[in-house]
Amino acid sequence: MSGYFDSVSDDAYFGEATWEKAESEMQRQTLDLALSKANLPITSLEYLFAGDLLNQCTSSSFAHRRSGLPYIGLYGACSTMAQTLGVAASFIDSGLGDTAACITSSHFCTAERQFRTPLEYGGQRTPTAQWTVTGSGAIILGADGAGPYITHFTPGILVDAGISDANNMGAAMAPAAFDTLSAHFRDLNISPGYYDLILTGDLGALGADILLDFFARDGVDMSGRYNDCGLMIYDRQIQDVHAGGSGCGCSASVLAGKIIPGLRDGVWNRVLFAATGAMLSSVSSQQGESIPSICYAVSLSSQKAV
Amino acid sequence: MSGYFDSVSDDAYFGEATWEKAESEMQRQTLDLALSKANLPITSLEYLFAGDLLNQCTSSSFAHRRSGLPYIGLYGACSTMAQTLGVAASFIDSGLGDTAACITSSHFCTAERQFRTPLEYGGQRTPTAQWTVTGSGAIILGADGAGPYITHFTPGILVDAGISDANNMGAAMAPAAFDTLSAHFRDLNISPGYYDLILTGDLGALGADILLDFFARDGVDMSGRYNDCGLMIYDRQIQDVHAGGSGCGCSASVLAGKIIPGLRDGVWNRVLFAATGAMLSSVSSQQGESIPSICYAVSLSSQKAV
Repeated sequence: MSGYFDSVSDDAYFGEATWEKAESEMQRQTLDLALSKANLPITSLEYLFAGDLLNQCTSSSFAHRRSGLPYIGLYGACSTMAQTLGVAASFIDSGLGDTAACITSSHFCTAERQFRTPLEYGGQRTPTAQWTVTGSGAIILGADGAGPYITHFTPGILVDAGISDANNMGAAMAPAAFDTLSAHFRDLNISPGYYDLILTGDLGALGADILLDFFARDGVDMSGRYNDCGLMIYDRQIQDVHAGGSGCGCSASVLAGKIIPGLRDGVWNRVLFAATGAMLSSVSSQQGESIPSICYAVSLSSQKAV
Repeated sequence: MSGYFDSVSDDAYFGEATWEKAESEMQRQTLDLALSKANLPITSLEYLFAGDLLNQCTSSSFAHRRSGLPYIGLYGACSTMAQTLGVAASFIDSGLGDTAACITSSHFCTAERQFRTPLEYGGQRTPTAQWTVTGSGAIILGADGAGPYITHFTPGILVDAGISDANNMGAAMAPAAFDTLSAHFRDLNISPGYYDLILTGDLGALGADILLDFFARDGVDMSGRYNDCGLMIYDRQIQDVHAGGSGCGCSASVLAGKIIPGLRDGVWNRVLFAATGAMLSSVSSQQGESIPSICYAVSLSSQKAV
């Protein structure tokens, strides 16, 4: 889906000397681009909500250290885009500000060496493994505007189903997605048919199957309206990414690149964006721990909530 | 100030097999204790705002993975207690919920080996270094109650003054504290005299001196009403902690153990709690980067805001 992105870089270093600095620079450029598309100066932003996968969330803190913006750092692993949108929307809805930006990123090379092995090692990946997306997405929220609109936010609970295979995040996160989506449908007293598109991110091939299986057991049919950002971002016929994409930047760039424009252009009227995160670290895996996961759901609509 | 704490443990492992699991268990016990003091069941909480220093914030996510609570993970390094309080107060003030808990922790042994050297190495510390507190603090916020009250929240901007010595966090964080406190006084059109106590956490001896020096240059006198959690938590005459305490658990346990009860008992009427964080990682330091820092300020009052 590269045609949907506002910018595609041929340089994984983004002109910097290290991958970590590259990821920060990518995130900084993404915010710049979003502001330029919105025709807003950076000084018009009242809050910046950001997060990423790196230890101590340095991609975000270094990206914005000269922005001068009130900064709220969040950690939700790969769920960060939905988490920042939900918290930012809550701030704006409550009158604490009129304009906020939400941004997140991931980088294959920073994630691979932090969570798995040095890239030079050339380790084999299991079929259940996902491929961390090198990407970033930014969304600017305003109290006014022509939409799309955020109408609801369902924050998730931590769910730990006992999966301890760090190469099978989809299986670890699917129960969290099931929990949050079920809570969302229950709270709003709606069925999946309320939405034109229900989008998880990033369960990958295996996790998405597990989620559909959970719903099928409850007699809930999601077919025809369900997809996963990890399955959308790559062409798995020609890109060897095993179970699909992952990383904060995956759902963020799919949402910002394809879904928001699609809501604006009438492709969909109502989308449920349910990003998922696996809250492990390499230390917790080395200590034999299972993987707590979380899912935040944000309802997006081309129409204002009534 | 050990007499102020609700619980003091003789076991740095909290009965667990590793320090990381110990920190999670400490944080879980702290929330339990706060709920028991408030005489509330855990199910009465509508949100849990949490964060810590460990890679991917696992102390928090593992502590609460069986809590069943809607979970918002934040990352503000050692500023996390003020950051969670500010965001949680915003949620409650805006009617998004009636009850939320804010919690954070740090552990000397997990931080030391993650950020510095293996404990067994017995590395010498520089005089400017601070000592990561093994501690945790939890605060439960409610829409109703007899106080103390949160009356204002000033979220900070990232400030990078070019300090790159990871053993001198106080110097890196003092400019952020100065920026946020100055913005707070300016926004509210008040002077430091408005507060009975202005409390940073954790600048330590050197950072606190730098902050007072910055204000003195502006002709602003903070004397007699300023202190720093990193200077309060240890008795530096008998505890060899160099420049003082640090870590999310330092300001959290000083606030929860001494300040909140002091507000309730009339020791102070108005306290400005300004926790500071250094947003570095060991990777950013190894790559020669300077240290972006942040400070969040939360006004606490024994009286309701008018």
